[in-house]
Amino acid sequence: MNEFELIARLTKTLPTNESVVTGAGDDCAVLDLGVPDKLILFKTDAVVEGIHFTRETAPEKIGRKALARCLSDIAAMAGTPTAALVTIALPKNFDAEFVAQIYAGLNALAEKHAVAIVGGETTTNPERILISIALLGTVARGKHILRSGAKVGDAIFVTGELGGSRAGKHLEFEPRLAEARWLADHFQIHALMDLSDGLAGDLPHLLKASQVGAQLLKSAIPVSRAAKMRAKENSAAKPAVLAALTDGEDFELLFTIASKHAVKLLDAWKKNFPELKLSCIGKIGGGEGILLRDKIGSHKLNAHGYVHFA
Amino acid sequence: MNEFELIARLTKTLPTNESVVTGAGDDCAVLDLGVPDKLILFKTDAVVEGIHFTRETAPEKIGRKALARCLSDIAAMAGTPTAALVTIALPKNFDAEFVAQIYAGLNALAEKHAVAIVGGETTTNPERILISIALLGTVARGKHILRSGAKVGDAIFVTGELGGSRAGKHLEFEPRLAEARWLADHFQIHALMDLSDGLAGDLPHLLKASQVGAQLLKSAIPVSRAAKMRAKENSAAKPAVLAALTDGEDFELLFTIASKHAVKLLDAWKKNFPELKLSCIGKIGGGEGILLRDKIGSHKLNAHGYVHFA
Repeated sequence: MNEFELIARLTKTLPTNESVVTGAGDDCAVLDLGVPDKLILFKTDAVVEGIHFTRETAPEKIGRKALARCLSDIAAMAGTPTAALVTIALPKNFDAEFVAQIYAGLNALAEKHAVAIVGGETTTNPERILISIALLGTVARGKHILRSGAKVGDAIFVTGELGGSRAGKHLEFEPRLAEARWLADHFQIHALMDLSDGLAGDLPHLLKASQVGAQLLKSAIPVSRAAKMRAKENSAAKPAVLAALTDGEDFELLFTIASKHAVKLLDAWKKNFPELKLSCIGKIGGGEGILLRDKIGSHKLNAHGYVHFA
Repeated sequence: MNEFELIARLTKTLPTNESVVTGAGDDCAVLDLGVPDKLILFKTDAVVEGIHFTRETAPEKIGRKALARCLSDIAAMAGTPTAALVTIALPKNFDAEFVAQIYAGLNALAEKHAVAIVGGETTTNPERILISIALLGTVARGKHILRSGAKVGDAIFVTGELGGSRAGKHLEFEPRLAEARWLADHFQIHALMDLSDGLAGDLPHLLKASQVGAQLLKSAIPVSRAAKMRAKENSAAKPAVLAALTDGEDFELLFTIASKHAVKLLDAWKKNFPELKLSCIGKIGGGEGILLRDKIGSHKLNAHGYVHFA
């Protein structure tokens, strides 16, 4: 049983109550706690030494990444982050200076986005550092965007460039908070999520939630320079497009919008975010799963990102 | 540097914003998110295999304990829990049935207290299971009770019995949610917290936050049957009263109230909670720290619970 199968089993019958607008399964939980004009967003995310960072990673970047990942989930709901709790599990003989620097990186990013750090705890995890962030945010009532709203005929967009994040971006990415709020304020976005496991791994979640399929145009996938460089320098590395589809930790926005608004969106985007690429990478169709089109034909893309000829 | 010294350093200068009513340092963070009649409570707490439970612990009890600890912190603010996120970090070859049973125990307690489980995540921690709960709650505006309100002359109360929790109570305790709300509704409680590290370890936090001292009457400390049994059966074990002061994981309420209301409180308590002991264990004084009085005299109690003759 893998992580997704386990989660599917565990989340089938969870306790609920009248505060729950959207429970498990989207980028954040959405709660109605009685704020007249707002809903509450609630999210946790953990980073673990040896998986998301190493002992060689600069500690400020570890702290920054831990918070940035959670901020990206608030962005994926078109929300605004408010307050976070920080849980740090540490080996017994921790280096206090190292921990202080983790906090320094985390605090700097929190201040940039006006997020309050309101506590948390330190506990013991003898073998490795684990940092879990719990984040609260808000979103205007009626403005939060789920994964489940994609419609047949929608254009599929992605911000930035994909792949090769491990070369550095995974520690320095900018959560797309302002961009997502701008999208929600100016366009009728049907479905939105952030990319953490790679387009080939994440898009299926959006498709499944929306009960639709997707056709992607291989040449339209925005491949990062880091992924291209790696493919060029190392013949054993993944082809650059496959890296863009499967590397993960892109923390870009993936969203769909009615095709008729696509051109207007691209124009407005260029004016507002001239330094951040926005790419239309395909369209939503009926059926299931992802078809990747190139000059030769259509290939089926599975959730693990492997390309099979269809 | 121990945990408390590290926390003191890290929490000295945390980012804040206008939503923060009470940040790090109390049982929960308190936020004003604009709910007309309520404030929001926000808390995380983690349990770690080998520290808070073992592989031999029944998995339902592990899940129950993880949530119950957090609920106890909501009780410590006189609040009501609303929704939780569950982070489970697991070794690679986890037993799915074991994890499902952790959830079963957690879900059962959540349902009992009408708490929604709105998601979370599973991640990898190769050597041991770690469960972190993030919990949201609410409290009526003006009704949340901090640690910092104790006044000289207050009577100090504790619910239940202390010590020996490791014999079983730490897996089965009832978070004192109803009791704490009743206290807040019917009496002017000056300071309130829950006992997790033992009276000798926790009371100093309340005293420091309130800038007062305390005198405890040794004979008034409610010692659990489990602590008494252990002391009786094993001459190498802690004396029972010392166990009650230092064992920890009691998850009872500790609070102070003006002495003139103490008798009325005890009477009303007996009517409302006839099965739960409430003990007046001493009084708040000027000065610093804790003095423990017995027939011989007064002893200074330090934060680690050791008794020194004063």
